[in-house]
Amino acid sequence: MPVNIPETGQPRVVIIGGGYGGITLGKALKKSPFQVIMLDKNNYHCFQPLLYQVATGGLEPDSIAFPLRKLFAKQKNFYFRMAEVERIDPALKRLYTSLGHVNYDYLVIASGGKTNFYGNEELEEKTQGMKNVPEALNLRSLILQNFEQANYERDTELRKALLNFVVVGGGPTGVETAGALAELKRHILPKDYPEMAVEEMNIHLIEGGDRLLAGMSEKSSEDSLKALEKLGVQVSFNTYVKGYDGHRLTTSDDVLNMSAETVIWSAGITGNIIPGLKPDVIERGRIQVDENNRILGYSDIFAIGYVALMKTEEAYPNGHPQVAPAAIQQGDLLAANLKAIQEGKMPEAFKYFDKGSMATIGRNKAVVDWKKLHLKGIIAWLGWMFVHLLYLIGFRNKLVVFANWVWSYITYDKGTRLIIRPYRKDEYLRVKQ
Amino acid sequence: MPVNIPETGQPRVVIIGGGYGGITLGKALKKSPFQVIMLDKNNYHCFQPLLYQVATGGLEPDSIAFPLRKLFAKQKNFYFRMAEVERIDPALKRLYTSLGHVNYDYLVIASGGKTNFYGNEELEEKTQGMKNVPEALNLRSLILQNFEQANYERDTELRKALLNFVVVGGGPTGVETAGALAELKRHILPKDYPEMAVEEMNIHLIEGGDRLLAGMSEKSSEDSLKALEKLGVQVSFNTYVKGYDGHRLTTSDDVLNMSAETVIWSAGITGNIIPGLKPDVIERGRIQVDENNRILGYSDIFAIGYVALMKTEEAYPNGHPQVAPAAIQQGDLLAANLKAIQEGKMPEAFKYFDKGSMATIGRNKAVVDWKKLHLKGIIAWLGWMFVHLLYLIGFRNKLVVFANWVWSYITYDKGTRLIIRPYRKDEYLRVKQ
Repeated sequence: MPVNIPETGQPRVVIIGGGYGGITLGKALKKSPFQVIMLDKNNYHCFQPLLYQVATGGLEPDSIAFPLRKLFAKQKNFYFRMAEVERIDPALKRLYTSLGHVNYDYLVIASGGKTNFYGNEELEEKTQGMKNVPEALNLRSLILQNFEQANYERDTELRKALLNFVVVGGGPTGVETAGALAELKRHILPKDYPEMAVEEMNIHLIEGGDRLLAGMSEKSSEDSLKALEKLGVQVSFNTYVKGYDGHRLTTSDDVLNMSAETVIWSAGITGNIIPGLKPDVIERGRIQVDENNRILGYSDIFAIGYVALMKTEEAYPNGHPQVAPAAIQQGDLLAANLKAIQEGKMPEAFKYFDKGSMATIGRNKAVVDWKKLHLKGIIAWLGWMFVHLLYLIGFRNKLVVFANWVWSYITYDKGTRLIIRPYRKDEYLRVKQ
Repeated sequence: MPVNIPETGQPRVVIIGGGYGGITLGKALKKSPFQVIMLDKNNYHCFQPLLYQVATGGLEPDSIAFPLRKLFAKQKNFYFRMAEVERIDPALKRLYTSLGHVNYDYLVIASGGKTNFYGNEELEEKTQGMKNVPEALNLRSLILQNFEQANYERDTELRKALLNFVVVGGGPTGVETAGALAELKRHILPKDYPEMAVEEMNIHLIEGGDRLLAGMSEKSSEDSLKALEKLGVQVSFNTYVKGYDGHRLTTSDDVLNMSAETVIWSAGITGNIIPGLKPDVIERGRIQVDENNRILGYSDIFAIGYVALMKTEEAYPNGHPQVAPAAIQQGDLLAANLKAIQEGKMPEAFKYFDKGSMATIGRNKAVVDWKKLHLKGIIAWLGWMFVHLLYLIGFRNKLVVFANWVWSYITYDKGTRLIIRPYRKDEYLRVKQ
C-alpha cells in the first residue's frame, strides 16, 4: 500500500534522511515546482559533533536535536513521514518503507553514516557507539553507573575496571570523548565522589594508525596528542582492538590487554546504504556519484553528503571529506540542479569549498586547520565553539548550548549527570538506528 | 554484606528518598554530630510538579532534575548510595537494600508517593503514569508517535482514536496535563501537521468526584472548569474508569465508553511503603506519626512528607496536605529535633504553615488559593510560575526553565518535540520506579 501522501500534481523529490544534506536540500527547494517529501526514522535532526558532550553529561540531549516538522513548519510544498526506508526499486521509481511504499520522480539519498564495527558482532554488541542520541544517553548512564558502583566497590580489581575507560579510535570523536572524560576525572569526580581515589580512574585512547586526527595536519596531530597526555590520557598507536567480551579487552598488542567496564567505539563510520542499487556503484560503504551528485548509471537517483563518493574533483581523488560543510554545499547545489534539470537546462558541476577542520580536546584546548593555517590553544578553542554554535540548528538550541558552555567554563561544572534510564549491559536490546 | 560506607564513629541518620523532605533534612543536618546517609534509587532529585511539561514537550527532562551528589557536594558528613530499599528490620536497626544492608541509629522514611492504580493491573499496564522522568518521556514519545501516525492514517476510526486523549483524574496533575494538551492542539498541531484536521483531536478529562481540584476552593474548581472548557477540553464528573485494554476505555457511564490510544492516569497517588513496619501504623498508604514525625510505636524511626500521616494538629485531622511545603517544613523541624533528641532535650511539635495551593491550566490561566484569598487569570498564572521557579532546585535549572517559558510565551511554541526512544505499547517493559 502506498504511504498516504497527497498527490499534488507536482513532480516529486523524495529525500531520504534529515541530516545536513537533506535539510539543506529541502529548504533550498522551498521555491520550486517540486513536491518535497522527506523520510527519516527519527522525527528530529541531530547535531552529531556534540553527541560526545551529551554522553559525558555536558549538554542535555534536547539541545542538540531539532524537530524536523518544526524546521519546515512554514514550507507548503514539504511533507514529512517518520519512516525507515527498506529498499529502493529504481525500475518502478519506488521506495519501500516501514509505512508502505512511496513513488518518486527524483530520489535523493542523504542517509548519512553509522558506526562501523567491521562485521565484528561481539564489538557491536558489547562496546558503546555514539552516533545517535539514544546511544549517547546509554553511554552517559553507563559512565555514571560505573562511578556509583566504583564508589562502594570493595574488590580492587573490579573497581579499577569500573574506572577504566577505553576509547577506540583517534579521530575527532575519539579525541573529543577522551578529552571530556579526562575533564570529568579532573573537575567532577573529586567534587561528586569525595570518598573515591580519583587516581584510580584511567582513560585509554587506542588508535590503529600512527597519529591522532589522521584527516588533519601533522601539527594538529602533535598538538592534540600533547594536550591529551597533559590531561592524563594514555594514548597508544598502531594497535588494533581484537575483541571485547563486556569486561576484558584484547588487542593486537598483548601488553594493552586489560579489564574495562566501558569501551567506547569510535574507530570507524560507514555509509547507511539502502538496498536496491546496482552493487557496482557501492565502494567501501559509499555510493559513487558524478559531478552532479547523480548516482552512476541512474538518471533520477542522487546521493549527497556522507554516503556520496564523488571522484571528479582533482583535489579529492578519493572523494570529499565526510563533514557537514560538504553535505550542505552538495544539498544547496543539488536543489539548483534539480530545478535546472526539470527545466531542461544543464546542471552545474560540484566544486567543494574547504572550510577546514577542527577538534577540541578540552577547556581552552583545540586544534584548527584552515588551508595552510594551523591554530591551537584558546583561539582555536573559541573558534571551535563559534563554528559549532553556528552550525547548530535552531536559535533556542544555540542559546541553551552557549549558556551551558559559559556556565561550565565559569564553574568548572557540567550540567546534567543524570541516570534517567539505567543501562543494563546484559539485558540491553541494542537500539538499532 | 553491609554496603560499603565508612564508619565515622558518628551516630548515623539514614534518609530514604531524595525528594523535598529528604533533601531539606539532609541539608539541615550539615552542621550536626550525625553521619548522614541518603539512599535513593535515582541519582537525582526530580521536581514532580513540572513533569507534565516534560510529557507535553514544553521542557527538557534535564531541567527539572538535579543530581543529588551535586546538591550535597560540599557537605562532609553526607554519603549517598544509589540503592533501592527493600525492607526495614527495626529490631536489628537495619535496612536491606539492592546493594546490601545498612545499619542506622535513626531512620527517616521520606520515600514519597507513586501512582495508585488501586490494584487494577490492566490499568497499570496500559495507561500512562506520570510520576517520574522515564514515565513522562514515554508519554511524550507516545503523544508524538500518535500524531505522526494520525497524520497519514486512512482509517477514520483509528485516526480519531489516535487523536483522542483521555486524562483520568481532575486533581492538579490532571487539570494541568489536560490544559497542556489543549494548548498543543491549539498552537502546535496546526503548525507541525498542516495536513491534519485539527478538530479531530479530542481531550477528555474524567473525574470521579463532582468537581475539579477537590483539594482547593469551590471558586478554583469553577474557574479551572471554565478555563478548560474554553480550551475545548471535555470534562465529565461522577464517572469512574473501569478498564482499558490499550485501545478501548470502559467507564461507569456507558455513554463515555470510547476508543482512545492514549489514556493518562492521574487519578491517584499512594505512599511508597517499605515493608518491615508493624502493619497497624499504615493507614491508606501513609505511615502514622506523632507530632515529632516519629512513627507510632518506634523510638528511632521517623517519616516525613508525602508518606507521613500526622493527625495531631486540630486543623488537619486527616493529616497534612501532601505537598512540597509540608515535606520541607517537616524535614527542617526534624533536623532540629534529631539534634535535640541526641542531646537528651525535648523535641518540638510540628506546626504546619499553610502556603496555599495552586494549579495552572494554560497560557495566562491559573488558580491560586491562599488562606481566604482566591486569585485567577494572569496574576495567578504569574504567581504559579514564580513559586515553581522558586522551588525548582538549582540555579541553572531555574534559568533554563524560565528561558523556556519566556520563549514559549512569546513564540506560542514549545521546545522539544522529540521522540528519542519510541514507546512500544505492546513490547514495553514497564519502568518500575
